Amino acid sequence: MLNLKGLGVSEGIAISKSFIYKKTEIIIEKKNISNTDEEIKRFEKSVDISKKQLDELYEKTKKDIGEDEAEIFSAHKMFLNDPEFISNIKEQINTGINSEFAIKTVRDILIQNFSLIDDEYIKERIVDIQDVSDRMLRNLLGIKDPNLSNISEDCIIIAYDLTPSDTASMNKDKVKGFVTQVGGKTSHTSIIAKTMGIPAVVGIDSIFEKIDDNVEIIVDGDSGDVFVNPDDRTISEYSLILKDFLREKEELKKYINKKTITKDGESFKVFANIANHKDVEFVLENDAEGVGLFRTEFIYMDRNSLPEEDEQFKIYKKVLESMQNKPVIIRTLDIGGDKEVNYLNLPKEMNPFMGYRAIRICLDRKDIFKTQLRALLRASIYGKLEIMFPMISSVEELFEAKKILEEVKNELKDEQIKFSEDIKVGMMIEVPSAAILSDIFAKHVDFFSIGTNDLIQYFTAVDRTNDKVQSLYDPYNPAIIRILNTIISNAHKNNISVGMCGELASDPSFTRLLCGFGLNEFSVNPASVLKTRKNICESNNSENIKLAKDILNYESSDPIQRLLS
Amino acid sequence: MLNLKGLGVSEGIAISKSFIYKKTEIIIEKKNISNTDEEIKRFEKSVDISKKQLDELYEKTKKDIGEDEAEIFSAHKMFLNDPEFISNIKEQINTGINSEFAIKTVRDILIQNFSLIDDEYIKERIVDIQDVSDRMLRNLLGIKDPNLSNISEDCIIIAYDLTPSDTASMNKDKVKGFVTQVGGKTSHTSIIAKTMGIPAVVGIDSIFEKIDDNVEIIVDGDSGDVFVNPDDRTISEYSLILKDFLREKEELKKYINKKTITKDGESFKVFANIANHKDVEFVLENDAEGVGLFRTEFIYMDRNSLPEEDEQFKIYKKVLESMQNKPVIIRTLDIGGDKEVNYLNLPKEMNPFMGYRAIRICLDRKDIFKTQLRALLRASIYGKLEIMFPMISSVEELFEAKKILEEVKNELKDEQIKFSEDIKVGMMIEVPSAAILSDIFAKHVDFFSIGTNDLIQYFTAVDRTNDKVQSLYDPYNPAIIRILNTIISNAHKNNISVGMCGELASDPSFTRLLCGFGLNEFSVNPASVLKTRKNICESNNSENIKLAKDILNYESSDPIQRLLS
Repeated sequence: MLNLKGLGVSEGIAISKSFIYKKTEIIIEKKNISNTDEEIKRFEKSVDISKKQLDELYEKTKKDIGEDEAEIFSAHKMFLNDPEFISNIKEQINTGINSEFAIKTVRDILIQNFSLIDDEYIKERIVDIQDVSDRMLRNLLGIKDPNLSNISEDCIIIAYDLTPSDTASMNKDKVKGFVTQVGGKTSHTSIIAKTMGIPAVVGIDSIFEKIDDNVEIIVDGDSGDVFVNPDDRTISEYSLILKDFLREKEELKKYINKKTITKDGESFKVFANIANHKDVEFVLENDAEGVGLFRTEFIYMDRNSLPEEDEQFKIYKKVLESMQNKPVIIRTLDIGGDKEVNYLNLPKEMNPFMGYRAIRICLDRKDIFKTQLRALLRASIYGKLEIMFPMISSVEELFEAKKILEEVKNELKDEQIKFSEDIKVGMMIEVPSAAILSDIFAKHVDFFSIGTNDLIQYFTAVDRTNDKVQSLYDPYNPAIIRILNTIISNAHKNNISVGMCGELASDPSFTRLLCGFGLNEFSVNPASVLKTRKNICESNNSENIKLAKDILNYESSDPIQRLLS
Repeated sequence: MLNLKGLGVSEGIAISKSFIYKKTEIIIEKKNISNTDEEIKRFEKSVDISKKQLDELYEKTKKDIGEDEAEIFSAHKMFLNDPEFISNIKEQINTGINSEFAIKTVRDILIQNFSLIDDEYIKERIVDIQDVSDRMLRNLLGIKDPNLSNISEDCIIIAYDLTPSDTASMNKDKVKGFVTQVGGKTSHTSIIAKTMGIPAVVGIDSIFEKIDDNVEIIVDGDSGDVFVNPDDRTISEYSLILKDFLREKEELKKYINKKTITKDGESFKVFANIANHKDVEFVLENDAEGVGLFRTEFIYMDRNSLPEEDEQFKIYKKVLESMQNKPVIIRTLDIGGDKEVNYLNLPKEMNPFMGYRAIRICLDRKDIFKTQLRALLRASIYGKLEIMFPMISSVEELFEAKKILEEVKNELKDEQIKFSEDIKVGMMIEVPSAAILSDIFAKHVDFFSIGTNDLIQYFTAVDRTNDKVQSLYDPYNPAIIRILNTIISNAHKNNISVGMCGELASDPSFTRLLCGFGLNEFSVNPASVLKTRKNICESNNSENIKLAKDILNYESSDPIQRLLS
């Protein structure tokens, strides 16, 4: 038995077999080839295999997801059927070099030439060329296409890291837990695990050296323990904990269809965060009172071109309809930072978390922003839509965003396209300058939502994904406590509602404090809705208010953490 | 007349003839070599010649300009002494190709790898590699080193870029300005221009197509304007500005040996920022009342190992002695972020500005921190030392830093080594959490110094070196105005002094506002000391206070900027 210790980022216990998910790096060496005829045959074979794979992917995607989504594979195949592309590579091989290097050379020239042209369509083609070249290279080098979609048995995924593209196609029914080498509390791995309500442990060094494929694994998402080939005693011990965990989960179901109200009658709301329309299933299952954050950036990721208005409209409509007139706060595009969208060719930045991202991109690329706003407005008649702008740092940005929203409304009116006249408009409070100016901002929006992940990150000047400085990313820092109080009371002074959609909203040690400050709405992962409701229902708000008052007198982190934990 | 627009990186005006400095193109052909042993000897000879040239350049530059400026040639030589760099080239030659192509291959791979990293420091290293490879190639190909040493008439140098080897041998008396195609605020061209006190403009596209040799040129280092063949009106206009510029410089000298006191008798202090002991000369020349920031990190940079205690002691002693009992605030090591120290092998970070840097490194690497503190304490008896900690984000960090300082004091006492008992200990306020908790911090330090560069960066969540989001890095954002007021008044409530050492301290549009808030000490670049003093002396503090009060009522940036500008 091997006991590995990592960081538990999504609670729960899983006992299952390991599934190694390892991406192989493509390394291209230049080799001199004497028999170029042989080499050309080798190349042609890789083209044939690639074509066959693309056909299969096309059929599978068309069946599982849809024809639109499958189209991309036809586009890839077009390159393989392009006589010029193929003959250029063959010409390179004929100079006496290996297929791999020939593909790389032709690919690099093509991409370089294309890069000079500032055009959306061309940019998408660059991604295609990269993709299709990688496929040929993998086939030549015998590297297997990694894939999580065809998992057929219960398992725990073992990976270096999990990105949205990795988990998008994952067979969610069979995946019981995650263990990764890198990542932090707010990484994609953690978020997806929490939404799914499965345990996850991150930060296991040299993970592939320590865990083999298809061995027995226990994951403890609370303690961060991972047991490889556990002995019988450990298995039976954890089986009991797992049973308790499942029973607790069962007991929380009592809170379905209950109001979120403290013992002394103070009402709060528990909403849920989602990343796509499929998550609504979990939202309803856990009886959230609304969607507090729809992270629309995931609609833009894992693809080769911008989603069109109609495609977005359909997604928003589906979410709004499914939520049956409960409020749905949809955040406009929040890409950049650690969320990359390849086809936009965003600049490589030294400090992406403080760079060109979210509303900054939208105000610059009004075409993208307007398309999303049009889709949102059109969908608004199907439910109770609220629109939220991320990363606002100045009053000017908010005014500009609202101005564009008005422009779009006027355009729709001109086109006689219906939309709801009753859409609330709010903003994230996550940039320190916005927190400091929250009294001013509160006069210009209908609601705030505090994004604690970025807020703590900027206030403490700590990249939340950087292990070396994690201890300073500290929600118990009195500066954070103070600023949360400031934001909430500024909202209330101006009679607007204030929610929270960062990690802190689902942190049980913060629930009572936030009630005491007067936070109106907690937006948490679907799997945390009932627990948060339970914690609020079991508390007494007069005590919460007293706690909140007391805590503001503390001058350092440790006693605050002790008091809240 | 042609009006070109670039980036002004060193202020001032120059009117003179252009001197085109265009290097002969190095054309590299790939040749097959049968006798690789011979070829390796040929290559080694070119390395030896290059080393000799670099030694000569080092000596000449050290003599003519200074040791720091000569350091660059040591850096170049380091590449030639780097066994991996050299053996990589030899390996290439051993595959049967000529030295020139082997150098090119290794150089291109190195540059390509470096280019993936968007970092100022790395960009400069790319220039170094280019420079040293070109030198070897010129020596192999028998191309003569282009030469700026035999300029005999006043001129403005027009170049693609200026490298240290270019400017080392330059006849400085005759060069009145620089205009280059590439470069940034921290490029060699900018630094050397500032050292020489001449204007420089960088970033002129296709420079050699636009500017001929020996034509009339006007360079405006403030606005970034370059005029080619200016008409008579422009010449006479700029002649007046040039005259004004020189007269203003002369007039500021009136403020030498004057107190920094407003018309209505309120006293302030103007200190200067320095990066090495030689800068003290300029501090004294400009009559600063103290050193407000000694950036000790430069002692650690551009070298191959940590500076030892004795070496540091000598530098601190020299500065303290030269400053003749005027206060000298020495900031402890502030590396990381954009300031790299290669030999420490700091981790490559996704967001270095929010990473492992400054006090975070020092509290982790106590060996480094203690060595510096020992050197500081030992030097303290030679003047009026004040010690300042950078990047403090939590009370715990401050306590820990102070505890280590006490430990070091006790060690010195045990060793019977003398140090001053009267050393003030302060901290930078640059992390938002520290600003929010400034009332608490003020109880535990003797002074604050506001670091506006980082402060604005974190409060607005904008990387200040990222062009794409520069407009949001806005000192006029009301959040910044408010927080400056908060910090200053929290300092005063606790009877401690508060200074400012960021860019804002020397921004004339902020001087009166900061006086109005009650900032005690402005620490600026030596060249800005007298101007800052003049602005304070010419103001009336009752009006400054009124301005400060008024400005706090503004809710957006534009009117604040208008009022202050």
